[in-house]
Amino acid sequence: MKISVLSMFPELFDSYRQSPVFKRAVERELVEASFLDVKSFAGGSFRHIDDSPFGGGLGMIMRAEPLYKALQSVRSEKSHVVLLSPKGQPYTQKRARELSQMEDLIFVCGHYEGIDKRFENLCDEMTSAGDYVLTGGEIPCMMVMDSIVRLLDGALRKGATEDESHENGLLEYPQYTKPSVWRGSEVPPVLLSGNHAEIRKWKTLSSLLETRRLRPDLFEKHKLTEEEKNLLKEYDKEQDKN
Amino acid sequence: MKISVLSMFPELFDSYRQSPVFKRAVERELVEASFLDVKSFAGGSFRHIDDSPFGGGLGMIMRAEPLYKALQSVRSEKSHVVLLSPKGQPYTQKRARELSQMEDLIFVCGHYEGIDKRFENLCDEMTSAGDYVLTGGEIPCMMVMDSIVRLLDGALRKGATEDESHENGLLEYPQYTKPSVWRGSEVPPVLLSGNHAEIRKWKTLSSLLETRRLRPDLFEKHKLTEEEKNLLKEYDKEQDKN
Repeated sequence: MKISVLSMFPELFDSYRQSPVFKRAVERELVEASFLDVKSFAGGSFRHIDDSPFGGGLGMIMRAEPLYKALQSVRSEKSHVVLLSPKGQPYTQKRARELSQMEDLIFVCGHYEGIDKRFENLCDEMTSAGDYVLTGGEIPCMMVMDSIVRLLDGALRKGATEDESHENGLLEYPQYTKPSVWRGSEVPPVLLSGNHAEIRKWKTLSSLLETRRLRPDLFEKHKLTEEEKNLLKEYDKEQDKN
Repeated sequence: MKISVLSMFPELFDSYRQSPVFKRAVERELVEASFLDVKSFAGGSFRHIDDSPFGGGLGMIMRAEPLYKALQSVRSEKSHVVLLSPKGQPYTQKRARELSQMEDLIFVCGHYEGIDKRFENLCDEMTSAGDYVLTGGEIPCMMVMDSIVRLLDGALRKGATEDESHENGLLEYPQYTKPSVWRGSEVPPVLLSGNHAEIRKWKTLSSLLETRRLRPDLFEKHKLTEEEKNLLKEYDKEQDKN
């Protein structure tokens, strides 16, 4: 997968580029990444990267031309151009899976103060990390990259991406590691039992309960399997007794 | 505001710490930040930072003890402890405003593969950047920090945080800057008119229309003012005619 990032602050990606998963993906040639400085495309008659907005208002708006030139320098017929923007569609794991199938991704990091609408129109999609205000698109871009790169074949160990929260629309069951008693607090005995069928049931039920408690909105959307229905029914009956 | 970050990879924050808004906030003493390496709290009888999960499964789970020791080293009575976790409540601009009022924030960045549940229970809240899977809590942590720091008095110019997307539950109106005609595409004439009342109306209407088109879910939740209702009614009537 080819990834090109267009940013006014490409140096903001330096640490991320050294992070274990990304670095390994580059070393294994799963990802070929380049980080372009949009400022270097602001020469000639468009000297500046941003200017004040038409119609007044605070803040500076990124000009269309330098972004356009930077985009043209990397765009091909296969490119899919993603503008990180608070106006975008909220990013989801489903979208991460889709983007991870693409051959050539271009990410454009805007000022969150604004970017000329005429450039926005040239992008294939606008994506938002969530409903909050940030300084720029760089951190959301890292987030999208991180979510995609870890899905590439060979980036993580096989199976490592399956049980996670949000992979199947549910939150993950609680996790425990050594010691079995930590500062007076015990691991649920079933996890130490060695009974794999019981452990699997506990994991399924716990995942459902965590989701119902913490994210009722996700729980509502989840289509329960027959087994899940039965486990929940049993649990709720047990609770009613107590 | 005091901010402490607990992470296995504090070096992932190096670039962010050099970013303009964060750096200025530190220089102006609006923020006093420290970045602790949880690995350095893994000595003694708990030599390792993570271990395999009880009950089987792939991936490594972060042990409670090193995290606990790291937390104890910075926690005070005023501390509010935020664990970045995919199980957390989805982060919003409202929460950013609330957190920006706190005196002492501690962010704990987990492995997204898992963290011992018994440590989770010691945190004041779990926060999630969104419904997608990431490698760790570091990038979401930067995002939360960025959203908070820019709200601190003196971090940005006065008024700069008001019109943004998500600040009032709507997306921002489209922005344009020079030139007024760019590669054949024109700025909406009203923005060049100098008529401030008309410009304000256009901005209000455009913000509503963008939100209705791109984020019907946000539009539904927004309580329209009388003026907004009228602007939309007029617009829709005009559209029906055409």
